[in-house]
Amino acid sequence: MAVYTDVSADDLNQLIAGYDIGELRSYKGIAEGVENSNFLVHTSAGNFILTLYEKRVAAGDLPFFLGLMEHLAARGITCPQPVKNKQGGVLGKIAGRPAAIVTFLDGLWIRRPNANHCASVGEALARLHLASADFKMKRPNALSIDSWRPLYEHAGARGDSVRPGLCNEIVKELDALEKTWPRDLPGGVIHADLFPDNVFFLGDNLSGLIDFYFACTDTLAYDVAVCLNAWCFEPDHSYNVTKGRALLKAYAKVRALSAAERAALPVLARGAAMRFLLTRLVDWLAVPDGALVKPKDPLEYFRKLRFHQSVKSVDDYGIN
Amino acid sequence: MAVYTDVSADDLNQLIAGYDIGELRSYKGIAEGVENSNFLVHTSAGNFILTLYEKRVAAGDLPFFLGLMEHLAARGITCPQPVKNKQGGVLGKIAGRPAAIVTFLDGLWIRRPNANHCASVGEALARLHLASADFKMKRPNALSIDSWRPLYEHAGARGDSVRPGLCNEIVKELDALEKTWPRDLPGGVIHADLFPDNVFFLGDNLSGLIDFYFACTDTLAYDVAVCLNAWCFEPDHSYNVTKGRALLKAYAKVRALSAAERAALPVLARGAAMRFLLTRLVDWLAVPDGALVKPKDPLEYFRKLRFHQSVKSVDDYGIN
Repeated sequence: MAVYTDVSADDLNQLIAGYDIGELRSYKGIAEGVENSNFLVHTSAGNFILTLYEKRVAAGDLPFFLGLMEHLAARGITCPQPVKNKQGGVLGKIAGRPAAIVTFLDGLWIRRPNANHCASVGEALARLHLASADFKMKRPNALSIDSWRPLYEHAGARGDSVRPGLCNEIVKELDALEKTWPRDLPGGVIHADLFPDNVFFLGDNLSGLIDFYFACTDTLAYDVAVCLNAWCFEPDHSYNVTKGRALLKAYAKVRALSAAERAALPVLARGAAMRFLLTRLVDWLAVPDGALVKPKDPLEYFRKLRFHQSVKSVDDYGIN
Repeated sequence: MAVYTDVSADDLNQLIAGYDIGELRSYKGIAEGVENSNFLVHTSAGNFILTLYEKRVAAGDLPFFLGLMEHLAARGITCPQPVKNKQGGVLGKIAGRPAAIVTFLDGLWIRRPNANHCASVGEALARLHLASADFKMKRPNALSIDSWRPLYEHAGARGDSVRPGLCNEIVKELDALEKTWPRDLPGGVIHADLFPDNVFFLGDNLSGLIDFYFACTDTLAYDVAVCLNAWCFEPDHSYNVTKGRALLKAYAKVRALSAAERAALPVLARGAAMRFLLTRLVDWLAVPDGALVKPKDPLEYFRKLRFHQSVKSVDDYGIN
């Protein structure tokens, strides 16, 4: 939660002069987003979000992210829509950073999702998978299974300082995942990070999806497995089968899961838990002792992984 | 720059139901404010700011701050106006914190003020001093000269780790200030923190003043001295006499400075530099080694103090 780069009014006025979005009235840095700097920009034409892409986002990936948002918005998926500048482009520059202005989406993210929210997100995820089927650009998943062992090796033996024996558990799991990982399931564009803070609701209705900066080309059912991890566990890390059933049934109503996809869900869910365990572990270990800001707890995903390891079949997730 | 306390949509919906400000459409934590948590709240009735008062703000002071904003807004000073709830009160509670909803002010704060901006802030400060003359509540300045020696003692000998010899310089200056501090100049409500990020402009026009959470009852000319420190130095810490003259002349056009006030300006400016030097020093020393966020540099105010110590009379500030 941070603004990494400040923006001056002069620079912002100059940027905005290149768009047909009226005159600048105010802008405020938003305490959201861990990779980029985000500003809520209010102009005489309405509210917009200005995103400055910081170093962790590869500039070469921006056309994929922005193109995907345009593609999805054109197909009725409510997501931030990149605003075209007077030259017809969507990528600008401010304060030495690549930047984009996108439309502002009304909606609230749900801190304590219930089964209805889970159903809504399942349905929206399936719609996203269908709507992006004809999106032409590709972006490999930089956080796919191939990246997990290097991530683990980056953390190294220090993992045991977070929990004794953690390294050994991770290595055993990586061995198992690399042997059993399904490689021939249906693929396409996945959001890859559809956590509750990236899904907006107005009242009981899902009103939009945001933050496409992990989106990539990968196994569609893996995206479902990410959502099971992100939406269907209780604060005590126990799996809520009612929420899982709601999410899976709503997804399958829009895009049927094949028998192979259903059978692979437990291992995909283990993989998704591993991915967040590892990135959180690396972030956790990167923070110096005594720092005021603590990153997210990696062990949350170790506990979720334990659940997935105990699963006998997809039935245990609430669907068969 | 932080949001210290997160707010759930359910809690915010419940709070907003107590006000006549329509239905919640979105809310985002703002990366502004060092003492409180601030959210930009968008409802069907418009934009508002929700502030949660964190521990560093004494709950007993809130009626002063909120009452002052109401008082000033009623007298034509553009500042955030506390929104009354259905019971007529302005103080609510959310996430276990006292909280208030205030109107949203359009405007941008100026990262690189010029002499015209300085004139505008001088005029606005004088108007604020006049408009609050009949405000009945009192609040002692918790960061007045009486607090500076205890602040210094809190930092203690560690001050020398920031700059060798700093402690000795501070003690000598405190001795001098305590002997010469003017105690019988005209008093009233002062903003006490009117830095550029608390003053909004739209185009060339000042559009509002914000952040009244250091406001208190103290010497009016001390508030002018704070502004000289905050607005009239260049990034290299040299004093810009053109900016100082613009600020002082515009102030005096609205509220004349007496001969005694003018004569006291150099010592008041030294005191104001000391106040920010000391609070920044304490904050600086409170941050553990290796922390990612560095607080503001206390030595900026040491350098400004050096300038004020060299001043022969108020003429050196650009006015006589």
